[in-house]
Amino acid sequence: MKLAVSGKGGVGKTTVAANLVKIFAQHGGTVYAIDADPDACLAAAIGIPEDEAAKLKPVVEMRDVIRARSGGGVFYTLNPKVDDFIDDYSYKLGNIRFLRMGDPKKGGSECYCRENTFLNALVTSLLLDQNDTVIMDMGAGIEHLSRGTARGVDMMLIVVEPSRNSINTARQVEKMAGELGIARTGIIANNVRSEKQIQFITNCFPEKSILGFIKFSEELWLNAMEPSPALETEKELLKEMKQVYLNILGEVGGNKH
Amino acid sequence: MKLAVSGKGGVGKTTVAANLVKIFAQHGGTVYAIDADPDACLAAAIGIPEDEAAKLKPVVEMRDVIRARSGGGVFYTLNPKVDDFIDDYSYKLGNIRFLRMGDPKKGGSECYCRENTFLNALVTSLLLDQNDTVIMDMGAGIEHLSRGTARGVDMMLIVVEPSRNSINTARQVEKMAGELGIARTGIIANNVRSEKQIQFITNCFPEKSILGFIKFSEELWLNAMEPSPALETEKELLKEMKQVYLNILGEVGGNKH
Repeated sequence: MKLAVSGKGGVGKTTVAANLVKIFAQHGGTVYAIDADPDACLAAAIGIPEDEAAKLKPVVEMRDVIRARSGGGVFYTLNPKVDDFIDDYSYKLGNIRFLRMGDPKKGGSECYCRENTFLNALVTSLLLDQNDTVIMDMGAGIEHLSRGTARGVDMMLIVVEPSRNSINTARQVEKMAGELGIARTGIIANNVRSEKQIQFITNCFPEKSILGFIKFSEELWLNAMEPSPALETEKELLKEMKQVYLNILGEVGGNKH
Repeated sequence: MKLAVSGKGGVGKTTVAANLVKIFAQHGGTVYAIDADPDACLAAAIGIPEDEAAKLKPVVEMRDVIRARSGGGVFYTLNPKVDDFIDDYSYKLGNIRFLRMGDPKKGGSECYCRENTFLNALVTSLLLDQNDTVIMDMGAGIEHLSRGTARGVDMMLIVVEPSRNSINTARQVEKMAGELGIARTGIIANNVRSEKQIQFITNCFPEKSILGFIKFSEELWLNAMEPSPALETEKELLKEMKQVYLNILGEVGGNKH
């Protein structure tokens, strides 16, 4: 199962991705958790200590290794097999393998085309070659999607909140997912506080495409101020996310397992 | 006065930028409101109807005009004077001139280096050559900042909410602003719901750098579901934003006016 999580900034993509990683991991098999957004914080949300995550080599550095092995050729035209390298660049937590794509950029840096091409090759390889579960936190998503990173994704999960702006972004992501040839998209509604808000989101998408609703949580906000977020997902959120998990299996699992 | 608004996705950058645009506009002079984030929705927040904003040519198309004028040269090495073109590409609302940088990208599109270089030239030109107020909504900010778009900015406004993740992003932005040579940064705290949250943010930054606190608003969320957001900013938010405006003038204005 290969899943990508996208949606407008701030809607809760990382919370959704982290909980899916944990739930898939509980059901056995290796789960690759990929932080593909320099502005995201998937490691902490999974339960990897911040200092450990900071020590982890970003996979973008892997290009030098591959370049060396390929005899110094123009690396960005290759589609490297990354299986041999993944252990060096991932943080293991039980059967979760966490990888981060890159560090935040420096102000005033140059063009990233080579870097991005390499990252695409790598992610595509992960998505296409691995038999295990891959869950990618794509951040605001638009940039990554546009570079073709999403090839091989079984389902594009789009997180929305009860605002017209996040719905508009979701429609853009749906459109791009179609352009990229991704067969399935699913909506996860987050930060829902009222029946009116549930109704608003229900009216925006076909019923079948909505994978679940996640209620606004005061506890999550309290937690957000702590240096190390609590590892235990609160009960209500866990229940909601398990339903999302089952709905994803229902949509994708039939053809995969 | 040239201001850029940045911060983690979903913290309320567009709300802050839109209100500053309106407040500066009330005090006379032309205000350029620039939507530099394909995932943002500054037009609607200022009060420009969605269908009118959608009709507006994105400034990235201006490159063809400039290319033609420059005799078909390699346009992206130029630093075009954009003053002549701005009227064609902006939407006027009173003394506000709204410009949007570009359309959302298509899934699987190619490299955007030329486009980005052009946009940088344009924004730099706007920031350096215009005598009026320029307010840029930079979205999640990291990508744009990293391409040098921020040159000429008098103050980088960084919106945070009471979460460690948004504070971490703010620190990244502060670091990049330093690398770009931006002299001043200021923090605007949004979505604040409790004294504990105010204290949390106060503890994260030097007191002088905090330009204001904006309380969480249930009304804003209700409004977010409407097709045309109310043009009138609610009283409490307006009061808070006016204080932010005065604090910005206090920091930057002394040297500018």
